Amino acid sequence: MKATIGLDIGGTKILGVLYGESGEELAREKKKTKASEGADGVIKQIEKVLDALLSVEDIELRGIGAGIPGIVSAKGEVKFSPNLPLQNFDLRKKLMEKYGVPSAVGNDVNVAMYGEYKHLQRPDLKNVLGLFVGTGVGGAIIVNGDLYVGQGGAGEFGHLVVQSDGAFCGCGGRGCLEAYASKKAIQNFILAQVKRGRETLLKSDVSDFGAVLKSSAIADAYERGDTVTIEAVDRAVDALGVAMGSLINLFNPQSIILGGGVMAAMGRQLEPKLYERTALNSMPGLMETVKISFSELGDDAGAYGAYQLIEHELEAM
Amino acid sequence: MKATIGLDIGGTKILGVLYGESGEELAREKKKTKASEGADGVIKQIEKVLDALLSVEDIELRGIGAGIPGIVSAKGEVKFSPNLPLQNFDLRKKLMEKYGVPSAVGNDVNVAMYGEYKHLQRPDLKNVLGLFVGTGVGGAIIVNGDLYVGQGGAGEFGHLVVQSDGAFCGCGGRGCLEAYASKKAIQNFILAQVKRGRETLLKSDVSDFGAVLKSSAIADAYERGDTVTIEAVDRAVDALGVAMGSLINLFNPQSIILGGGVMAAMGRQLEPKLYERTALNSMPGLMETVKISFSELGDDAGAYGAYQLIEHELEAM
Repeated sequence: MKATIGLDIGGTKILGVLYGESGEELAREKKKTKASEGADGVIKQIEKVLDALLSVEDIELRGIGAGIPGIVSAKGEVKFSPNLPLQNFDLRKKLMEKYGVPSAVGNDVNVAMYGEYKHLQRPDLKNVLGLFVGTGVGGAIIVNGDLYVGQGGAGEFGHLVVQSDGAFCGCGGRGCLEAYASKKAIQNFILAQVKRGRETLLKSDVSDFGAVLKSSAIADAYERGDTVTIEAVDRAVDALGVAMGSLINLFNPQSIILGGGVMAAMGRQLEPKLYERTALNSMPGLMETVKISFSELGDDAGAYGAYQLIEHELEAM
Repeated sequence: MKATIGLDIGGTKILGVLYGESGEELAREKKKTKASEGADGVIKQIEKVLDALLSVEDIELRGIGAGIPGIVSAKGEVKFSPNLPLQNFDLRKKLMEKYGVPSAVGNDVNVAMYGEYKHLQRPDLKNVLGLFVGTGVGGAIIVNGDLYVGQGGAGEFGHLVVQSDGAFCGCGGRGCLEAYASKKAIQNFILAQVKRGRETLLKSDVSDFGAVLKSSAIADAYERGDTVTIEAVDRAVDALGVAMGSLINLFNPQSIILGGGVMAAMGRQLEPKLYERTALNSMPGLMETVKISFSELGDDAGAYGAYQLIEHELEAM
């Protein structure tokens, strides 16, 4: 049976899924990334995942797609990754040589949101944006049904500046969306309030140095009326509304898909306020025709998107 | 001889140019728009321009392209124009029926910057942005060599929000790029300073109610060290740098073309500061590979872009 693999290579885990010809899942395998063991260690883990999937009987591998956190060139070379020991590493070539099939590599958020787009199965929606709000903020641009990557790094919605000379961002810039709306920004805001002596249900969560606050914990505190949490989330929603308004003015898309942990945990709850803020920032007449929806694939989005990425390349061959 | 017409339909003037098969100019015609005479009056003027061009001997008309200020649907229907008495007006259909040839209609700034892009004759540059800074601010998005319009209204770079809750904008929003960087914003800023009793070389220019300040006058006062003008222009450049940084983070384009009256008059002068501000707002590694250039067609960009727009459709047929 013909089959294709989608790989979601994260900083801590690698998920591989083997898909059949109709997109049905045939097998899945998960391994630790072992980022501390260098490039060779990571590659060994990737190969273990692939080899496990390829042990399924009677399959003929057609191609491998992969999503990876970091800057990936339009040709599939990993230029730089903040969480993986891969730099100027041609992962696409490596996979092609080792497994002898066409391969494709993209940025993890680009790929995951492309997966969410393909999952919609709405070929009538050609121009779509995917906005990902999780530990960081990212996105994907779909133009005429295809993932647009520019020179490879496009779709960095987290670094759309919403407030010039605003909050400092990890990228070295100021006022980026990510500095307000990411889970990390929410966490930092709450932590700053704790340091000022304010009370919050999330006091111990945010004070645990090194740990990343859970989206579900934020959602829970928000729902229970925790003032500090509400302030942090409202600040995030304000920035998201500004960014979404701008994105509508720039792309005039047919649809925006909202994904990532924060949206999964509290997107529906934040919807009315988010729409209101977006409307304030988009041009008259442009927002009404934009369908806003939520992602549905959860943790499988990355692997599914990687599968769709290589499927798209196979079709074009 | 086979020929194609490009029309630049402005609020005050209509420019039509007849192009031969190699893009050479065969004839041109300019008429007043007569916007005050309603839709019929404007159409009559458009037809006068077209009929004059069609009186050239021995030509066989292949198609008509047009750029028009306002919101144009992806199908070429004028949804709304702030300066023309055309609303929900299917100009494309009108032209096709009257002249019996394929026609295309787009937003004037989209079309003009597409013209600048085609004028580069650089097929290796596939993903390019055109940023137009004139009385207003607009732009064009080129994806894979084609003009991207989304549902028709894409490329509204003037309504990229650079400062949430910032300066009020004509669109009803706040903090839009246009509210800082357009000639109108520069004029308003200088006028506000005059009202506060400050001295400026442009005092009489900005105080003449209803008149639009000339880009050349701004450039002149800036060069002569006029403090108020320098403040207004620096504020514009700061906002442009924020916007260009964001645009690079979103699109990771190969090139940005800067056009419009303000850029024509003082782009070269502002270049160092603009680049410096853009670098502060774009992600590390993304700006280095973006070629920034200036538009070259001046007042002919609209007609030339309209010609290229219909040529592109004719090729695809």
